Amino acid sequence: MSTTVSPLAPTDVPAMPAIAGVKLATAAAGIRYKGRTDVLLAVMDKGTTVAGVFTKSKCPSAPVEWCRAKLGRGGSSKGGFARALVVNSGNANAFTGKTGRQATALTAAIASKAVSCSANEVFLASTGVIGEPLDATKFDGVLATLAETAAPDHWMDAARAIMTTDTFPKVATATVKLGKAKVTINGMAKGAGMIAPDMATMLSFVFTDAPLSSAVLQSLLKSGVEDTFNAITIDSDTSTSDTLLAFATGTAAVSGAPKIGRASDPRLKAFAKAFHDVLANLAEQVARDGEGARKLVEVIVEGATTKASARKIAMSIANSPLVKTAIAGEDANWGRVVMAVGKAGEPANRDKLSISFNGIRVARSGARDPSYNEAEVSEVMKSPKIQIKVALGLGKGRDRVLTCDLTKEYVAINGDYRS
Amino acid sequence: MSTTVSPLAPTDVPAMPAIAGVKLATAAAGIRYKGRTDVLLAVMDKGTTVAGVFTKSKCPSAPVEWCRAKLGRGGSSKGGFARALVVNSGNANAFTGKTGRQATALTAAIASKAVSCSANEVFLASTGVIGEPLDATKFDGVLATLAETAAPDHWMDAARAIMTTDTFPKVATATVKLGKAKVTINGMAKGAGMIAPDMATMLSFVFTDAPLSSAVLQSLLKSGVEDTFNAITIDSDTSTSDTLLAFATGTAAVSGAPKIGRASDPRLKAFAKAFHDVLANLAEQVARDGEGARKLVEVIVEGATTKASARKIAMSIANSPLVKTAIAGEDANWGRVVMAVGKAGEPANRDKLSISFNGIRVARSGARDPSYNEAEVSEVMKSPKIQIKVALGLGKGRDRVLTCDLTKEYVAINGDYRS
Repeated sequence: MSTTVSPLAPTDVPAMPAIAGVKLATAAAGIRYKGRTDVLLAVMDKGTTVAGVFTKSKCPSAPVEWCRAKLGRGGSSKGGFARALVVNSGNANAFTGKTGRQATALTAAIASKAVSCSANEVFLASTGVIGEPLDATKFDGVLATLAETAAPDHWMDAARAIMTTDTFPKVATATVKLGKAKVTINGMAKGAGMIAPDMATMLSFVFTDAPLSSAVLQSLLKSGVEDTFNAITIDSDTSTSDTLLAFATGTAAVSGAPKIGRASDPRLKAFAKAFHDVLANLAEQVARDGEGARKLVEVIVEGATTKASARKIAMSIANSPLVKTAIAGEDANWGRVVMAVGKAGEPANRDKLSISFNGIRVARSGARDPSYNEAEVSEVMKSPKIQIKVALGLGKGRDRVLTCDLTKEYVAINGDYRS
Repeated sequence: MSTTVSPLAPTDVPAMPAIAGVKLATAAAGIRYKGRTDVLLAVMDKGTTVAGVFTKSKCPSAPVEWCRAKLGRGGSSKGGFARALVVNSGNANAFTGKTGRQATALTAAIASKAVSCSANEVFLASTGVIGEPLDATKFDGVLATLAETAAPDHWMDAARAIMTTDTFPKVATATVKLGKAKVTINGMAKGAGMIAPDMATMLSFVFTDAPLSSAVLQSLLKSGVEDTFNAITIDSDTSTSDTLLAFATGTAAVSGAPKIGRASDPRLKAFAKAFHDVLANLAEQVARDGEGARKLVEVIVEGATTKASARKIAMSIANSPLVKTAIAGEDANWGRVVMAVGKAGEPANRDKLSISFNGIRVARSGARDPSYNEAEVSEVMKSPKIQIKVALGLGKGRDRVLTCDLTKEYVAINGDYRS
C-alpha cells in the first residue's frame, strides 16, 4: 500500500450531503488488510432502482457475474431494484471458480438477512487480489451490525473502505433541479491501477434521490461513461472487476420531483448533465490517483477522420509506455507522440501533424516547429498537468482521454503488490 | 545510455565468419554520441540482391520511405539490387519532414560516390532520437574513408555501431549447405525499446553469400519474421524506423551453390531453416536486451480457437504492464495473467483456463490449482527466464511470444533518454 498521497489529489474535498433513502456503514472484516476498513454496506429504501455497466473482460469476476444476473441478462435493466450494496476491498473474488460463485451467494444471503430483503436485491462488488478464494463467512455478523449502524453521513468512510492502492478517497456530489424539486447526486470511486476501458474504473457507485426508472438510470450510465470512465487509462490493463452501479431511491418524489420513466424526457436534461459531471469528476480523480502518478496527462486528438479514430489515437498515445515515461522525465519528447500516432493504425498523414504540449506547439507539418524553443517547452513540462494536443489535419474527429505518467513508483507498487 | 550489460546477454558470442562480397567499416561521425562509433557502411559486390520488411507505422521515418522506394512500391522486390548499406545511430531521421528526405538523398549521394554505384543501390537506416534534423553533411568524407577501409571481418564493430540503448551487440551466424556448397548467413540487430510488431525490431541486417533472387529473399523474410521479430515485444511501442534488410551476394555460386529463383525450390529447405534460425536468434537477443530487462519472458498460449487468436492473447499478456511488473517482482501473480487473457477480447472461457509458470501449474479450471504451493512457485520465479503457459482448452490454436519484465530501470532509461 502506498502511504504517500498522490500530489495530484484534489485539494477541495466536497462536503457530502445525505441522500434520503441511503444509509452507509463500514467495518474492518479482516479480508486482507490490517488496521483499516475493508467492507462497505449501503442500505437503500424499498423501491430504489439500480443500473450498472461492467468490465468487458472475457474473464469477469464472480461479483460482476452476480450483478449482471440481477440486472437481467447482459446488464440490461430488467429487474433493476436494489436494497443493499456490499463492497469489499482486499480480494476481488475473481478467477475463483465455483468457490467464487458460492462466495457471492453467501455474501448476498448474509446481506439479505441483515437488511431483510431478497438476495436478488443485493448488489456486490469486490476489489483486490485476483485468484485467491474470498472467505465470505467473514461477513457473517459483520453485515448485520453494519445494517444496524448504517447512517446517512458516512460517505467519506465509504469511499475509504473500498480503496486498494488508492492514495486518497474519491467522492463527488452535485445538486440539481428536477422539475421544481432539488435532487442530489453523490458518487464515489476507487482506482488506481489496472485501469483501462471498457470500463475504465475498477469500482464506482453513484446514488441519487431522484425518482428515475432503472431504464432511465441505465441510459444515463451508458451515455455518461463514454467520455468519462471509458476515456481514462492508467496502464492499458482492464480489470476483471470493473463495476459502475447507480442507485436512485426516488425519495425526492415527496418534495415534488417528477417521476422520470423515459430517458428522452426533457425534464431530465439538467439532471443528466449533473450526473455526467459527477462521473467525469470521479473519472478524473481516478486518473489523478493512477499508481505512482506524478502528472495528470490530458490527451486531445483533433482533426481525425472520425471521433472513433480520434479516440483510438488518443488511447494509443495515452497507453504508450514511452510517452508516459517521457512525461515522467519532464521531457517534451514529441517524437514519441508521433510514434504513438503511427502505431495506432488509424489514418494519419505524418506531414500534416501538429503537436503541442500545454499550448506550446512543438511540431507542425511533419517536422519540428520553426519557433521551437527548448527552454520554453522544458519549463511547461514541469507542470503537474500536461496537455498533449495532436492535430491530424484530416477531418473533424475529436476526442479526449485522461491518463497519468509512468514512474518508477508504478513499477514498485506493482512489482510488490501481492507480497 | 546504459552502461551495465543486461544480465540476460548471451554468454557465447559466435565468431562471425567473413561473407565473400560483403565488406564492413564503422566510424564515429559525431551524429550524437561522444566517444563511440555511430555509422556503419556495408559495401556489397555487384549483383547483390536485397529484400526488406519495415515498420507498419503510419508515420515511418525518411530512411524507411527511402528503402521502400528502392525496393519498389510497398516493399515488394522489384528493383532489388544493393551495393551499399549506410546505418547511423543517434538520430532516427524520423518526423523530419522535407529536411529528412533531403538528408536521405544526400546520404545516398555521398555513399554512391564513395562506393561507385547508383544511389538506387544504396540502402539506409537510422536509429535514435525522433524529430531532430539529421545533418547528413557529417557523412561527407566519412563514407569515402569507410569505403576504402571496409573489410570482411568487422562484424562485431558493425553490430556495436548501430546500438542505441542496447547494452550488448547482437550477432548471429549459421553455415548451411545449399546444393553441395557451403553457404553462410550472418546477421546483426539492435533493440532495445520501442519494440513491438510489426516489425518488432528497430534495425536488423542479414547477409548471405547464397545466390538468391531478391524475390526469394523477400519470401524468406516474409515467412521468417512471423514467429521471430514479429513475435517479440518490449513495451508495445512500435518504432517509426523498424527495418529488416537481407542481402545475398551470390558469391557462393563460384563454389557451386545453385542459383535459387523460386521460393518453392526444394533445394532451399535447409537454407530457409537456417535463415529462420538466425532471425529467431537475433529476435531473442533483442528481447534479452529489452530496456531495463532482468528477466526473459516466454509466453505460450495454447488451446485457443485459432493461431491468430493465440497470438493476440499472448501479446495481451506480454504487453500487460501489470504482468510485466509482477514478473519483475518475482511474483507468480497469475491473476494478472487471467486479467490479460480477459482483456484481449478473444474467445476465452474463464472456467477452462489453466496457467503455469516454468512448468508449475498454478491455476486450472478457472481457479487456483489444488496442488498450488506458494513456496515452490516463488522459487521458480527467481529464474532469469520465465515461461508463462496458458492453456485455454478451446481449440488447437497455439502461439509463442517473447518479452521481458518491466523494471524501474525501463522507466529510468526512458524518462531520461533525450537529455
